[in-house]
Amino acid sequence: MAELGTLVLLRHGQSTWNAENLFTGWVDVALSDQGEQEARRGGELLAEAGLLPDVVHTSLLRRAISTANIALDAADRHWIDVRRSWRLNERHYGALQGKNKKEIADEFGEEQFMLWRRSYDTPPPEIEPGSEFSQDADARYQGIDGELPLTECLKDVVERLLPYWEQSIVPDLRAGRTVLVAAHGNSLRALVKHLDGISEADIAGLNIPTGIPLRYDLDADLKPTNPGGTYLDPETAEKAAAAVANQGR
Amino acid sequence: MAELGTLVLLRHGQSTWNAENLFTGWVDVALSDQGEQEARRGGELLAEAGLLPDVVHTSLLRRAISTANIALDAADRHWIDVRRSWRLNERHYGALQGKNKKEIADEFGEEQFMLWRRSYDTPPPEIEPGSEFSQDADARYQGIDGELPLTECLKDVVERLLPYWEQSIVPDLRAGRTVLVAAHGNSLRALVKHLDGISEADIAGLNIPTGIPLRYDLDADLKPTNPGGTYLDPETAEKAAAAVANQGR
Repeated sequence: MAELGTLVLLRHGQSTWNAENLFTGWVDVALSDQGEQEARRGGELLAEAGLLPDVVHTSLLRRAISTANIALDAADRHWIDVRRSWRLNERHYGALQGKNKKEIADEFGEEQFMLWRRSYDTPPPEIEPGSEFSQDADARYQGIDGELPLTECLKDVVERLLPYWEQSIVPDLRAGRTVLVAAHGNSLRALVKHLDGISEADIAGLNIPTGIPLRYDLDADLKPTNPGGTYLDPETAEKAAAAVANQGR
Repeated sequence: MAELGTLVLLRHGQSTWNAENLFTGWVDVALSDQGEQEARRGGELLAEAGLLPDVVHTSLLRRAISTANIALDAADRHWIDVRRSWRLNERHYGALQGKNKKEIADEFGEEQFMLWRRSYDTPPPEIEPGSEFSQDADARYQGIDGELPLTECLKDVVERLLPYWEQSIVPDLRAGRTVLVAAHGNSLRALVKHLDGISEADIAGLNIPTGIPLRYDLDADLKPTNPGGTYLDPETAEKAAAAVANQGR
């Protein structure tokens, strides 16, 4: 059997709403200047490591798409094949979309706040259809292969992500290609949970930093030969993950 | 029979080498700041016209890819399907790649210069493999479906473009989709020659301006119902086409 291609995960750089400490979810905000710089640095790390993607998979959200475009341009791989799916989108944050994280923590208390942010199976309240930050009228989700979520917990993200992993990403890996997945904190946590076999309890403590490529080498059974993956810039990744864990404090 | 989708052609904005008046061809230069602005304006024109692409086809060259990325972002269509092919690349300019247009005109005379630029079937001298501006070591062209050109005249571009038109772009149009083709002066001239049935003599006089979307409405036989197409900003298009015709003078 031919050797599997390499998988590279890249969480989008800082968005304008990350910078303002707002729950974003499916709201389609842009990268901040810092986020664009992070994406460029991510591409430079790929080039320095000689880890050159043959194909990129992105969500349908601008911050992941721009991150992929900028990183690939920096790595001189702007010309590779592109695939996109809503199944790589960030977790839908329901009625919390557009709300300030600190204000939600203050209003509902730290316990409820952390439950919505990190519990495996407790979604936030559903978003009201037609409200300011809902996506029901958004052209990109018309005719999606599934029902449009109104809120999601991480468990929901795992369930809608895995069919795409199996049907679209794995075939590229089996073809021996280096596959870049440019996506989001929670869609990448869902994928990492699956790859590393992390428990529902332990995934709560796992944070993925922005803009630093995370390499996974997989065996023929799609099990990582480097469990937990390998960050291309491990020192910065460790500091950044700690910062993510402290958001909203 | 279902109505055909709309075709929209977009020539990349000014590149750094356009700005320096160099023959570019397959050399993978970036957009200039002006080129990025043109691309953004192109996207705004699409949005203002409500002409929203469902799928984009690009060449493998950065200036077309960046133009598509910037224009689609400006039109809020960054999330659509993407397809790429070397068959949409600019004409390969052979040994002239990297050379100054004015210097070539001065050295070889106006007649030879115009023959290389605008004759239908006289290619420039072949590029020397392994030389500074040749593409033989370029990863993106390994295993392409065809032989790597060492130079091309417009006739060569028509011949390598049409299979992609038939096999990849037409099916998207027959599916009723609005199709954006982000490409180059000569690959778009080749396509327009085919669509409008322009003669080998008359195509020499046709120049396509950068950054202004050109809409074609096609009937079931793929004949334009608006021959010559319709520029979304006709006044600017006319001025820009005149400027292109005067390059190297």
